[in-house]
Amino acid sequence: MSDFVRIVEVGPRDGLQNEKTIIATADKIALINRLSATGLPVIEATSFVSPKWVPQLADAADVYRGITKRSGVDYPVLVPNLQGYERAREVGVSHIAVFSAASESFNRKNINASIEESLARFAPVMVRARADGVRVRGYVSTVLGCPYQGDVDVADVVRVASALHQMGCEEVSLGDTIGTGTPTKARAMLRAVAGEVPMKALAVHFHDTYGQALANILACIEEGVRVVDAAVSGTGGCPYAKGASGNVATEDAVYMLHGMGMSTGVDLDSLVDTGRWLAALLGRETSSKVTRARSPDA
Amino acid sequence: MSDFVRIVEVGPRDGLQNEKTIIATADKIALINRLSATGLPVIEATSFVSPKWVPQLADAADVYRGITKRSGVDYPVLVPNLQGYERAREVGVSHIAVFSAASESFNRKNINASIEESLARFAPVMVRARADGVRVRGYVSTVLGCPYQGDVDVADVVRVASALHQMGCEEVSLGDTIGTGTPTKARAMLRAVAGEVPMKALAVHFHDTYGQALANILACIEEGVRVVDAAVSGTGGCPYAKGASGNVATEDAVYMLHGMGMSTGVDLDSLVDTGRWLAALLGRETSSKVTRARSPDA
Repeated sequence: MSDFVRIVEVGPRDGLQNEKTIIATADKIALINRLSATGLPVIEATSFVSPKWVPQLADAADVYRGITKRSGVDYPVLVPNLQGYERAREVGVSHIAVFSAASESFNRKNINASIEESLARFAPVMVRARADGVRVRGYVSTVLGCPYQGDVDVADVVRVASALHQMGCEEVSLGDTIGTGTPTKARAMLRAVAGEVPMKALAVHFHDTYGQALANILACIEEGVRVVDAAVSGTGGCPYAKGASGNVATEDAVYMLHGMGMSTGVDLDSLVDTGRWLAALLGRETSSKVTRARSPDA
Repeated sequence: MSDFVRIVEVGPRDGLQNEKTIIATADKIALINRLSATGLPVIEATSFVSPKWVPQLADAADVYRGITKRSGVDYPVLVPNLQGYERAREVGVSHIAVFSAASESFNRKNINASIEESLARFAPVMVRARADGVRVRGYVSTVLGCPYQGDVDVADVVRVASALHQMGCEEVSLGDTIGTGTPTKARAMLRAVAGEVPMKALAVHFHDTYGQALANILACIEEGVRVVDAAVSGTGGCPYAKGASGNVATEDAVYMLHGMGMSTGVDLDSLVDTGRWLAALLGRETSSKVTRARSPDA
């Protein structure tokens, strides 16, 4: 099995969209440029959702236009619908991400649509993407628990992940949105999905709300996944999940993977510097324990 | 393999000895009584080191005398030498813990003795303990890294763990004192030690300084260990390690193990309440992410 793990940095989108402190466009651009300089191969840059939904990312077009497109680095952006797709295409986006929850209740409460309806909403986006040669990533959220219905059936996760893959998503990221998952369940869920979607096309996406993210990543790495989503400084969090914890901190995931003898292409020192810089910008302590442990004041 | 994991709660000793806020004797007694009410089977109660070394635990005799000895619960105490052993015996202690680092540099810097000398210092304690029918636990520290020499040879860990076991320690706890360890190394270290000391006689002890504790516990559980040290609210930390993080929080370890279908006998709700109570007493935020996620304010 390969010892290379591709880290998908989701801080500028999934992280920032759940942070209260509004960050200036220039700072978002600086963040992404700093991140690409660390060696990260994929940086989710922003989201072309309606600014009414996510005011933090209202400057999506300016951010995407402003970043230095480093050769060899992917900059996917989230799009919720055809309108978002068109806004993204206007600024030259060539890699997008679409999403659905695995939980019926979560979909209904949050986007007022069933899973089937939310997938159907993406069908025209997928058609256009294929015609335009745009690559598509798919997110499945609430794969290990839902704030409304509690348990989520693994069969539902498999069904939604397969549907996204069959619709043309080259990669499907499995997200524990509320961070309640534990390693045995994470592994069983991944194994079940890998029965329908090739492991090579799967990524895992953990939030650290209950402190389980690294253990869950370890279990999934052991199971064979080689793409891991993370957010520098552990920004974000899910507005529907209690607790202050957001995405797993990229620094801590990279530290673990390197310690396990795996490679990521990421320079940890440079990543720690960037995480520290971002935490200062957000006016809060970093959620990365590696960064805290390396602090000169510690 | 058994699905029961014995949690050894080390908060009242390893946790508190590294906390700056001095806790009243009555509060320490209340903490231990609350912990035993959660179903924890082993609670390291205090340390009979010289009060000059650890002022926080100068009231060891009063604490030990004051706690309610719940039937079926073990209350080991740390003893550094024969003098400490005698003080402990005076108040009826029947279970002690002794210690040595696996790193020669750590021993020399901290107790001004070689590993051989520090083990020799415990020989008369072991003789007395055997004669008195006192059970002994052994700690090996710096098993995955040392703040002075960096890497620690696995052979040194095996040698010290074997020596403690042969001297009469019924259980040997392997401690990543500075929290730099990662899962693959933790597992390899445990496997090597288990080649010389029966797995049933081994425990793992992780600090969460670099956020790796739960992932390391997972790797060691997979390898077969069934005894895990933890400290409620994640108190402690090593004064020689950078960063604010201490022991892995018992709440987070129990949450993970229960989520994995393992049993611990611990009531998580009651443990979370106790952790919250202790954090308030210490005047700091809990380090348990589970407790934070369950906070009514979260």
